[in-house]
Amino acid sequence: MNKHYAGINMSTNNEPMTISEKIFSKAAGKTVKAGEFVLADIDRAMTHDITGPLAVEGFYEIMRDKEEKKVWDPSKIVILFDHQVPADSLNAAQNHIMLRKFAKEQGIINYDVYEGVCHQVMPEKGHVKPGDLVVGSDSHTCAYGSLGAFSTGIGSTDMAAVFASGKLWFKVPETIRFEVEGKLPEHVYSKDIILHLIGDVGAEGARYKAAEYAGSAIEALSMSERMTISNMAIEMGGKAGIIEADKTTEAYLKERIPDYEFDPYWKSDEGAECELHKYDISNLEPQVACPHNVDNVKPVTEVEGTKVDQIFVGSCTNGRFEDIEVVAKMMGDEPVAKDVRLLIIPASRTEYMKVLRAGYIEQFMEAGAMVESPCCGPCMGGSFGLLGDGEVGLATSNRNFKGREGSPQSFVYLSSPATAAASALTGEITDPRKI
Amino acid sequence: MNKHYAGINMSTNNEPMTISEKIFSKAAGKTVKAGEFVLADIDRAMTHDITGPLAVEGFYEIMRDKEEKKVWDPSKIVILFDHQVPADSLNAAQNHIMLRKFAKEQGIINYDVYEGVCHQVMPEKGHVKPGDLVVGSDSHTCAYGSLGAFSTGIGSTDMAAVFASGKLWFKVPETIRFEVEGKLPEHVYSKDIILHLIGDVGAEGARYKAAEYAGSAIEALSMSERMTISNMAIEMGGKAGIIEADKTTEAYLKERIPDYEFDPYWKSDEGAECELHKYDISNLEPQVACPHNVDNVKPVTEVEGTKVDQIFVGSCTNGRFEDIEVVAKMMGDEPVAKDVRLLIIPASRTEYMKVLRAGYIEQFMEAGAMVESPCCGPCMGGSFGLLGDGEVGLATSNRNFKGREGSPQSFVYLSSPATAAASALTGEITDPRKI
Repeated sequence: MNKHYAGINMSTNNEPMTISEKIFSKAAGKTVKAGEFVLADIDRAMTHDITGPLAVEGFYEIMRDKEEKKVWDPSKIVILFDHQVPADSLNAAQNHIMLRKFAKEQGIINYDVYEGVCHQVMPEKGHVKPGDLVVGSDSHTCAYGSLGAFSTGIGSTDMAAVFASGKLWFKVPETIRFEVEGKLPEHVYSKDIILHLIGDVGAEGARYKAAEYAGSAIEALSMSERMTISNMAIEMGGKAGIIEADKTTEAYLKERIPDYEFDPYWKSDEGAECELHKYDISNLEPQVACPHNVDNVKPVTEVEGTKVDQIFVGSCTNGRFEDIEVVAKMMGDEPVAKDVRLLIIPASRTEYMKVLRAGYIEQFMEAGAMVESPCCGPCMGGSFGLLGDGEVGLATSNRNFKGREGSPQSFVYLSSPATAAASALTGEITDPRKI
Repeated sequence: MNKHYAGINMSTNNEPMTISEKIFSKAAGKTVKAGEFVLADIDRAMTHDITGPLAVEGFYEIMRDKEEKKVWDPSKIVILFDHQVPADSLNAAQNHIMLRKFAKEQGIINYDVYEGVCHQVMPEKGHVKPGDLVVGSDSHTCAYGSLGAFSTGIGSTDMAAVFASGKLWFKVPETIRFEVEGKLPEHVYSKDIILHLIGDVGAEGARYKAAEYAGSAIEALSMSERMTISNMAIEMGGKAGIIEADKTTEAYLKERIPDYEFDPYWKSDEGAECELHKYDISNLEPQVACPHNVDNVKPVTEVEGTKVDQIFVGSCTNGRFEDIEVVAKMMGDEPVAKDVRLLIIPASRTEYMKVLRAGYIEQFMEAGAMVESPCCGPCMGGSFGLLGDGEVGLATSNRNFKGREGSPQSFVYLSSPATAAASALTGEITDPRKI
């Protein structure tokens, strides 16, 4: 269990370490344990059009007395626009202009409006690898834990400090480990696993802990399915949601980071301290998070028949080709049910192209759906497919808080793409096993 | 020149009549002349998500003492949502709910969010034919003049009266006739013709007049190209923008109205009184309407080189397959110029499907454009692709007033799809003849 990173001999005492402890040890330049406070080097920082402007303002405030107002390392910062795309207000348009100017002046990568949702674009473009410490000014930054990184959401002012110094204070988190065994039944997906886990431990069950997902059920998942799991760690209060890298991860990264080499060091050692939760999902039913909390999770059989007005398939949680393919295959040539609005928004341009080339956009538009260019869509409740008073939405996204998709008098349910597709066909929440 | 409509002997004195006089005579049940005030029967009324709610409120106000609060004829009213789709605010979501309820209670056709922009959907679905008197609570309702109807925009409170009674007061307008001869040069389109006419007569040149477009150049146009011409009659102050029905119109209508029969009566008689303007467009250059008025029209050669930030191809003016095909063919495999946002929004689901099946959506997304489901998009300056301070937009739509697409400190130019495509390739306003 010894490894040298930049001259630092990690874990010299041979005590087993969690992957989070390993990552923070590398980032702090010394061996650290859960509970310690560390000033850690950031490997990658991501910001977007909602939280970016305040981070930039904060950065210039920090640098106000410096002659050269330069970020610590422009190659380690990524900016993109996804929450308000195309610009949905004068304020958004101004924010976009401001961030474009900042990116250009500092030499920072800016994907602008072109690529899609941050948590899809970051892994897709090869900005994250196992062992990295990544921060993003968005709560679902935990998504990149799917690649064996420690990745977490921070506020705009913390991001300003990262821009300026490349460092941030952390308390090294304790670990809560979910060992999930078994084979997923037909029509049950990784979204059902994570909803089940969140429902089980509750919205605060992993508060300020590094969630780890392991076991045969997790190992069997594709990268896309793993991203769904890691993405929602924050919904149980997790600081991160880590899945140890394996052959699946390696194959994904080799396509994106030419010089990537698999390193078996980036995993939790056997015997490392953690809070262990064990599950067998062999008989798991499709799950639905009911209004108005993500941890208000019920088997679909308990809510089936609930009339829905709008169904949203997309977001960083379930907006990839695999997710949308499930919907396409379940819907076949059938139209969207009368009086239901089906909104499909692939999470990135790359995913959109795959969906289009498979013929699914034609199929969805023919069925009466609305397909839009990559963006966060109704997930953020800004200006894209809002619900009115009394309306019911079903979404493959990650939050159903009161008013999340519009009116505080509306109701949002969360499910897998399969359950969303079954419900799009009937106009009510429907068990995908019965279609 | 005699014709009986519902027992009324039209034009008994054999004086030559304009098509507008004929339509108002039928609608008033007596022979009327320009300048007379008439209470006219409405053949079709259209309303949408922005102006509809006030019309519905007004209707119930008119009907407040009636026991049965029913519209005059539900089969003659069409509702659809296009300006705020998908619902872009809580207010929009509430308006949609209210209009859905109204349509359901009254038995009115409601295309909801599904079909696209009103002025594309109305002709496409066979709701307009030559000789009709059509009103819509949208200023570009004059578009249906392309089918030989008298069609005009009215306010929401006038629409309330139409809902209640099926009638509305009009002053029968005088006619301003544009006779346009010649063959369009390569890369010059019907949008260039109408911009040229508007630039020539000015924003008030046809105030409260029925514009008529005739001559060999107009006769040679497809229905799609004619719609562009009629659509912009309001930009010269016109009450209507009429093109007499011919074989082209007949072919279009036969596909949409199974029992449609061509009737040569619906045209202006030879010698009917009008203000005549003659043009030859054989040497017309591509035209651009410059900020901040539609009649501030210049040849493209006078503004080429102006840097653009966003290009919008779409709207009721130029969002049809033919328009988008021009863009696709001009762009070929080339990407959108760096730092330019190209937004393509087909005007209806039908047009979207044609664009998709021709492979153009794949081409545009590959080139870096954003393609969205049918809606009005940035044309209305609501919440879809707004411009920030100092930004420059080029659009195929119909208005460039200060702040029309966002910031009052932004600048909007209007052009044909060809000029928009050429400019998308270079990032500056570009003469399509030079690509």
